Amino acid sequence: MISPFNNDDDHDDKPREECGVVGIYNDPEASRLCYLALHALQHRGQEGAGIVAATRDGVLNSVTGVGLVSEVFNESKLNQLPGSHAIGHVRYSTAGQSMLKNVQPFVADYMHGRVGVAHNGNLVNYERLRRELEENGSIFGTSSDTEVVLHLIAVSKKRPLIARIVEACEKLKGAYSMVFITEDKLVAVRDPYGFRPLVMGRRSNGAIVFASETCALDLIEATYEREVMPGEVLVVDKKDGVQSYCLSQHPEPKSCIFEHIYFSMPNSIVFGMSVYESRRMFGEILATEAGVDCDVVIPVPDSGVVAALGYAEKAGVPFQQGLIRSHYVGRTFIEPSQGIRDFGVKLKLAPVRAVLEGKRVVVVDDSIVRGTTALKIVRLLKEAGAIEVHMRIASPPIIASCYYGVDTPNSEELISNRMNVEEIREFIGCDSLAFLSFDSLKKMLGGNSGGFCYACFSGKYPVAPNGNVNKVVDFVDDGLNGSIQSIDGGWLQGSEDQGQDLNHEEDN
Amino acid sequence: MISPFNNDDDHDDKPREECGVVGIYNDPEASRLCYLALHALQHRGQEGAGIVAATRDGVLNSVTGVGLVSEVFNESKLNQLPGSHAIGHVRYSTAGQSMLKNVQPFVADYMHGRVGVAHNGNLVNYERLRRELEENGSIFGTSSDTEVVLHLIAVSKKRPLIARIVEACEKLKGAYSMVFITEDKLVAVRDPYGFRPLVMGRRSNGAIVFASETCALDLIEATYEREVMPGEVLVVDKKDGVQSYCLSQHPEPKSCIFEHIYFSMPNSIVFGMSVYESRRMFGEILATEAGVDCDVVIPVPDSGVVAALGYAEKAGVPFQQGLIRSHYVGRTFIEPSQGIRDFGVKLKLAPVRAVLEGKRVVVVDDSIVRGTTALKIVRLLKEAGAIEVHMRIASPPIIASCYYGVDTPNSEELISNRMNVEEIREFIGCDSLAFLSFDSLKKMLGGNSGGFCYACFSGKYPVAPNGNVNKVVDFVDDGLNGSIQSIDGGWLQGSEDQGQDLNHEEDN
Amino acid sequence: MISPFNNDDDHDDKPREECGVVGIYNDPEASRLCYLALHALQHRGQEGAGIVAATRDGVLNSVTGVGLVSEVFNESKLNQLPGSHAIGHVRYSTAGQSMLKNVQPFVADYMHGRVGVAHNGNLVNYERLRRELEENGSIFGTSSDTEVVLHLIAVSKKRPLIARIVEACEKLKGAYSMVFITEDKLVAVRDPYGFRPLVMGRRSNGAIVFASETCALDLIEATYEREVMPGEVLVVDKKDGVQSYCLSQHPEPKSCIFEHIYFSMPNSIVFGMSVYESRRMFGEILATEAGVDCDVVIPVPDSGVVAALGYAEKAGVPFQQGLIRSHYVGRTFIEPSQGIRDFGVKLKLAPVRAVLEGKRVVVVDDSIVRGTTALKIVRLLKEAGAIEVHMRIASPPIIASCYYGVDTPNSEELISNRMNVEEIREFIGCDSLAFLSFDSLKKMLGGNSGGFCYACFSGKYPVAPNGNVNKVVDFVDDGLNGSIQSIDGGWLQGSEDQGQDLNHEEDN
Amino acid sequence: MISPFNNDDDHDDKPREECGVVGIYNDPEASRLCYLALHALQHRGQEGAGIVAATRDGVLNSVTGVGLVSEVFNESKLNQLPGSHAIGHVRYSTAGQSMLKNVQPFVADYMHGRVGVAHNGNLVNYERLRRELEENGSIFGTSSDTEVVLHLIAVSKKRPLIARIVEACEKLKGAYSMVFITEDKLVAVRDPYGFRPLVMGRRSNGAIVFASETCALDLIEATYEREVMPGEVLVVDKKDGVQSYCLSQHPEPKSCIFEHIYFSMPNSIVFGMSVYESRRMFGEILATEAGVDCDVVIPVPDSGVVAALGYAEKAGVPFQQGLIRSHYVGRTFIEPSQGIRDFGVKLKLAPVRAVLEGKRVVVVDDSIVRGTTALKIVRLLKEAGAIEVHMRIASPPIIASCYYGVDTPNSEELISNRMNVEEIREFIGCDSLAFLSFDSLKKMLGGNSGGFCYACFSGKYPVAPNGNVNKVVDFVDDGLNGSIQSIDGGWLQGSEDQGQDLNHEEDN
Repeated sequence: MISPFNNDDDHDDKPREECGVVGIYNDPEASRLCYLALHALQHRGQEGAGIVAATRDGVLNSVTGVGLVSEVFNESKLNQLPGSHAIGHVRYSTAGQSMLKNVQPFVADYMHGRVGVAHNGNLVNYERLRRELEENGSIFGTSSDTEVVLHLIAVSKKRPLIARIVEACEKLKGAYSMVFITEDKLVAVRDPYGFRPLVMGRRSNGAIVFASETCALDLIEATYEREVMPGEVLVVDKKDGVQSYCLSQHPEPKSCIFEHIYFSMPNSIVFGMSVYESRRMFGEILATEAGVDCDVVIPVPDSGVVAALGYAEKAGVPFQQGLIRSHYVGRTFIEPSQGIRDFGVKLKLAPVRAVLEGKRVVVVDDSIVRGTTALKIVRLLKEAGAIEVHMRIASPPIIASCYYGVDTPNSEELISNRMNVEEIREFIGCDSLAFLSFDSLKKMLGGNSGGFCYACFSGKYPVAPNGNVNKVVDFVDDGLNGSIQSIDGGWLQGSEDQGQDLNHEEDN
Repeated sequence: MISPFNNDDDHDDKPREECGVVGIYNDPEASRLCYLALHALQHRGQEGAGIVAATRDGVLNSVTGVGLVSEVFNESKLNQLPGSHAIGHVRYSTAGQSMLKNVQPFVADYMHGRVGVAHNGNLVNYERLRRELEENGSIFGTSSDTEVVLHLIAVSKKRPLIARIVEACEKLKGAYSMVFITEDKLVAVRDPYGFRPLVMGRRSNGAIVFASETCALDLIEATYEREVMPGEVLVVDKKDGVQSYCLSQHPEPKSCIFEHIYFSMPNSIVFGMSVYESRRMFGEILATEAGVDCDVVIPVPDSGVVAALGYAEKAGVPFQQGLIRSHYVGRTFIEPSQGIRDFGVKLKLAPVRAVLEGKRVVVVDDSIVRGTTALKIVRLLKEAGAIEVHMRIASPPIIASCYYGVDTPNSEELISNRMNVEEIREFIGCDSLAFLSFDSLKKMLGGNSGGFCYACFSGKYPVAPNGNVNKVVDFVDDGLNGSIQSIDGGWLQGSEDQGQDLNHEEDN
Repeated sequence: MISPFNNDDDHDDKPREECGVVGIYNDPEASRLCYLALHALQHRGQEGAGIVAATRDGVLNSVTGVGLVSEVFNESKLNQLPGSHAIGHVRYSTAGQSMLKNVQPFVADYMHGRVGVAHNGNLVNYERLRRELEENGSIFGTSSDTEVVLHLIAVSKKRPLIARIVEACEKLKGAYSMVFITEDKLVAVRDPYGFRPLVMGRRSNGAIVFASETCALDLIEATYEREVMPGEVLVVDKKDGVQSYCLSQHPEPKSCIFEHIYFSMPNSIVFGMSVYESRRMFGEILATEAGVDCDVVIPVPDSGVVAALGYAEKAGVPFQQGLIRSHYVGRTFIEPSQGIRDFGVKLKLAPVRAVLEGKRVVVVDDSIVRGTTALKIVRLLKEAGAIEVHMRIASPPIIASCYYGVDTPNSEELISNRMNVEEIREFIGCDSLAFLSFDSLKKMLGGNSGGFCYACFSGKYPVAPNGNVNKVVDFVDDGLNGSIQSIDGGWLQGSEDQGQDLNHEEDN
Repeated sequence: MISPFNNDDDHDDKPREECGVVGIYNDPEASRLCYLALHALQHRGQEGAGIVAATRDGVLNSVTGVGLVSEVFNESKLNQLPGSHAIGHVRYSTAGQSMLKNVQPFVADYMHGRVGVAHNGNLVNYERLRRELEENGSIFGTSSDTEVVLHLIAVSKKRPLIARIVEACEKLKGAYSMVFITEDKLVAVRDPYGFRPLVMGRRSNGAIVFASETCALDLIEATYEREVMPGEVLVVDKKDGVQSYCLSQHPEPKSCIFEHIYFSMPNSIVFGMSVYESRRMFGEILATEAGVDCDVVIPVPDSGVVAALGYAEKAGVPFQQGLIRSHYVGRTFIEPSQGIRDFGVKLKLAPVRAVLEGKRVVVVDDSIVRGTTALKIVRLLKEAGAIEVHMRIASPPIIASCYYGVDTPNSEELISNRMNVEEIREFIGCDSLAFLSFDSLKKMLGGNSGGFCYACFSGKYPVAPNGNVNKVVDFVDDGLNGSIQSIDGGWLQGSEDQGQDLNHEEDN
């Protein structure tokens, strides 16, 4: 599902996915298919996009740019990218001053050839790796964690290149779903915990496709085959076809549950499950566990739509389009100096008085981060005549930052970290408020529930985020687990190796 | 409701609204409010936008540009538009070679001052008026029909300016909702038939606002007061406040029913009725009159959503989001040369297999023009696993072109003009197809049904489109009315004067 | 010769030519030749450029833009201008807020076709003509005087078009060298006084070329045939070839002497004389009449170069390049806030110490307007080591503004209007100063001297500038002519008709 | 002197300077002064420009761009460069596909800080150094030789940074005049042979300035103090002021004589001599040694002007401006398909018939590279009426490519490498042709003559260009030196170490 308030940071109250990746092997129009696949993944990152393609004689050409896929590429740019294999990337970033150089894929020249890489995730030991590399004379050209991978490959003494890639990946900690391109190969890697998604598909002409979500496969008419497994390295080339290798670490997977709650498109299959189905069930659970007398159920579009449908159907209450989302919100919008109340939200969401007036309204959204948007939406609905507003959130409260590729605010800004549900209800001004309970979420996931990362709901990190020292204070003891240790001590180190066990206990 | 396939003419199968207008009087930030109101009216025209504002000392400054409101304006452009009254325009156009000069508002210098104008509609006697003016030495700078209004004002010998505006308007035939700006006045005019909407509102500081739809009033916190009446001329200035004049012609109004079917936003009040309510009732009628056994009801987003909700509720069948609309479709998109089946539709609409697989599906859309998109949507749904696809259209068949400000294809291209319902069903490949019946539509409108223009469904034109000779062959005798006369003859002339009577009969 | 300080108004101290025009008839690449000819005329106007070309079937296509010829046009723009006849224009203007719409050629639609026009000059009765036209309902789209010509043609009742053009031109007062284009004709007109130049040439393929200067003919390999005569109307078409008509007024010509002093390129033949030769002789006269002991003669580049060569040769003193002109001065240049003395001049002119140090220097420039640049140049030369600086100016003192197409400051700003030669010398700080004497100038011109306009040196206007009321106070009684009359009275009217006689006396 | 045909490679027949550098220390407006100094150095490179400035707290900000200094920078860009020390660069390059990333200054992050560098010259051992660095894991981001310096600094184990810079520089072979910037220091280095110029000056506020030529000092009101000596490392900081270090190699200097012939501005002092004086003397020598009966002496502007003045004065023949150079030649110019003979040259140079007709003309240019432009100029002059054209070239014949920072064609393209003087004369079609003789050039330089590099005239390379293997075949035995050895062997290696000795012999 697409970010409802993209391009307007002030009024946004959603976590941010950081990237989407794609790779195509052995299709005469590899770069064009990359471009379309990136379009299908655009919701995963709107600030930059790029493609690297390898020509028949092994030259890697690259086009990257700031903006949407449709802004970065045109016919002439795509014509600069001939060849039958290519990788691509869409990027979300905290806008830096020289963003262009941070737009992926990155390409590096080595002695024995060139390598390009596109990365979705976040490396928690980036700072340390970079420091070590710089001490040995490496010069960094970007401020992106992804660049360390290229330097690790460059300084590796292994042969052939695939061995260097594996050696480099084994030094990484954190979340990484990556695709690499070389003169003649495509390589897809997913970190041992499998934090971020990565799937493989095949086109009818035999071309292999890797992508963050299946919605990209659908657009380019590739059939979904399977996930790239956590810890798996898939190498594709002309000689050997697709070959699978494993990274040495084998923890229990910890896939990001927020992909199902918010990030992925509802038409995607992610971690083997339909996102649409997950969201519909979140809504049903809410209706069952937190039902309330009402006249109409409405979503916060677009992210709340499917859960609201599930809620309405289960509750037997009419679903209506009580808020209309604008399709024309640009990058910046100028407000009159005299001010318009809740300006940013009004630009994007228009209430429908015909639906709301005199009604008791249940409004369903996917999550609450800071609570600032929820507050405005409640006010909007009441001003449009709703006599009661009951907010239902299709995820548990977010109490901790993510270190695995999602941009969440610091924990002080997370409203659920500062207030209990009743306090939040009062703050946002609705008549009742309920979240999806953590237990119900896990129950719904059933036998798979141990395979997901819930760090943002629990504060339990499968991989210690010690690379980001200034954020470690985010750590929160929510009373669910007695084994939490001091911040200066062994736990962080320990959790790096055993995180999955700690969580395994907790999750069962 | 917003055009679902904007910016991609090949795959579009909707009529096109040609414009939206706005005017603000006596607000210190008039141009900024115009800009926001235009944003709220963006769905009425995406190809160009402009604002003219009058400074305290009577200078009219103008900023116009090609593109979306958010692309045309920025802080510095708005700063070039000081003053407390302003008018604005968003434009849809058949892209000409020098589009910029056709972007409204237009401004002209006269002996005694300057006038700016923004126009929504289409003048059927434009060619004749232009020829007459040119014969007397007027030079035209644009190919827009709106320019004749300025020349008619310029050659008028009346005093004061308001009398010249009235004299000019009385020479116009066709559809016009217009706002004029002068050094110290704002003038709003609606043609005697009231084809296109125009409403008046007021901000809490007393500022008067005119706009095509109430959704623009809502965004800038103006309270809706009333419509500008058909044939009414409203003049606003400091001395006399709001004064109302009447054009001399008083036919029965003929408001465009398509505003309720497709053009206007569902949260708008148009011609005194809620658009959302109209659409919901269209869906209910379809469910009642053309129900079918099914498992799920889905809309073609966004234009079919409200009618689909009405259908689903009335039919007691679950409503689901079976097609996901992309928010990122740009102006142009590059397809691989090997081709992707139904490429254009797939870029914009992604089917959700979890909703569709193995299901009997009712899909609701607002209208069918050429039928090309409907064909692709049915195919998309079947490929995603739907076992039956039943299409329900929330309007009667479109059989005739519009001459009153809507861009419809020539009648040869209108599928309902060439095929009956069963033939269309076969063409688009669905299992059943039903349109909203013309009679039910009129019954639903009840006592007001005589006040609407149904020319696109009936071929009966309230005002003869004789200015567009090459289109007159569109005229269709659908057997509803025996009084149709020959094309070369008196009817056309007659209908200009009595069109409303002919239609009055027909409609009752 | 090209303006030495183009693009930097603050530090410029030259009059400004307002335009250059070109027309090509019957060449398969008419628009490309126009474009090259405009490049050769670029020194006559750098703020805008445009071309209008007529296709075989009579469509007039137009491309205009702000900036240099090389910035406005590219391959694709020129491809939009097919056809075998075309006109072009380069424009200098006092930058207005909406400059683009003022860029010529202008094109107008009439009942019986389209006409395009490009104009070099200035119409002194523009305000009155515009008022009359507006009173009769004409709407003006630009603030350019040229537009009245199009309206006069539009309101003319004459047939055929050429008769309308002649009727229109006979209503004009002032300076106009114009080329018109219609579906099948090219028309060149020069006002009865012949203020501004206009020549005719022919290419080896028979194509006819009109241009402001012969340098444009040279570049496109056209042979110079003759001037368009003052008061002549030349019409070129397929049927009749080149035909000559006369406007009814036949005063003595008054060609602008400043074309020889400064505006035209030294390689041009203007008014039948070599510009290079004129300037060389100005320098020789200065050496003869105002010689001084010195070690080196240097020019202010580029406009003083040829006169300096004449001076040096006559005086028998070495000519050196004591000031180097930069080729890279852009539109704007940012100065440190701490300031650099004589910044603007230093950016453009670099003194050569090796030439200047310890030397007595004669520096030759073409004219002095405000004196501000001369002041800085003298300072620059002294700081670089010159022990004496003697300034020699290759024109008489400028004491009056021009109303015939040259942008001069108001007379209060003209240093020669406020100070005598000794005062100016003191102001600019040189050791001696001399101007070319008015008498010597006329003596040099010999029998032709009556055919030139010297209004800027004498204040005697061949055509009364009464259209520009606010500038009439510029009028200066320099004691040469006792017949000056009151400003409110008959003189202005009289001089319009007999100006040439008055001046004839004065000039002889 | 500025390239006469900049921006039009097809018609250019000049060697190309590759860069200009500047550095400012301890001025509150360091970046603005850099910007002005780069403007003064614009003739040394027009394809890109950049500035890096260090803020008070040690952050290095950078702005680089493609195009002229005036295009790359504006007020807002300069405001992004606060701080009191800065370096800048203007770049000439053979336009690559991703030019922007090659625009200097380059900046690198190290463990202990950041370093920026701007480089004028060419490193002959770049390929080898890069290969060695890549073997050890360095990743290169550009294709510029300058980048190796940053990697050499990065991998150095020395402390402090200045020692690392020295260690890095000592590994370089070839030509380098470089300025480095760090958080608190400015460092200027010139290679031991001093191929390219670099001077130091001081502003009245004490700020230290480094620049390629003194013309940059003049513009920003800095007083020229001295050259940075060959092999010298100058370090400027707050604590110690200016400190001088030496690189370990101490060969006899080999300064580029072409700086005096063509590259530098005539108002600059380069290698301690006035460029104007050198050129004037080249002209005098030509008049003395290769005089011819003639009526007029003209230069090819601008590069031939000063030598032509020297020739004319010595010969006692009038100097005239027989060719007018256009100031408006843009990046590309579109020619009619029917073609215009010698189009490119005509766009830039317009002959003056008044000067040339019926005359015996001596035309002076600075050099001949391929001979293609000379051919066209001769034709132009004859077509304008010259009855004899005698070409005089103010430098010896160019027979060998440069490897020290000048872009010359391959030796096969050098006309003097393929033809003797009489053959060239015949090729270009002039009546007589003479070059400055090598011996006279050295005689003129007197005691300093051993300190210059004449490789382009002699084929004797002070530093073996073995890094550019594909160009080594350029090597030419001109009979002046019997010690030339085989290409595969010891000489190249030997010359790297003793090149100066070999040349010392040869040159004396």
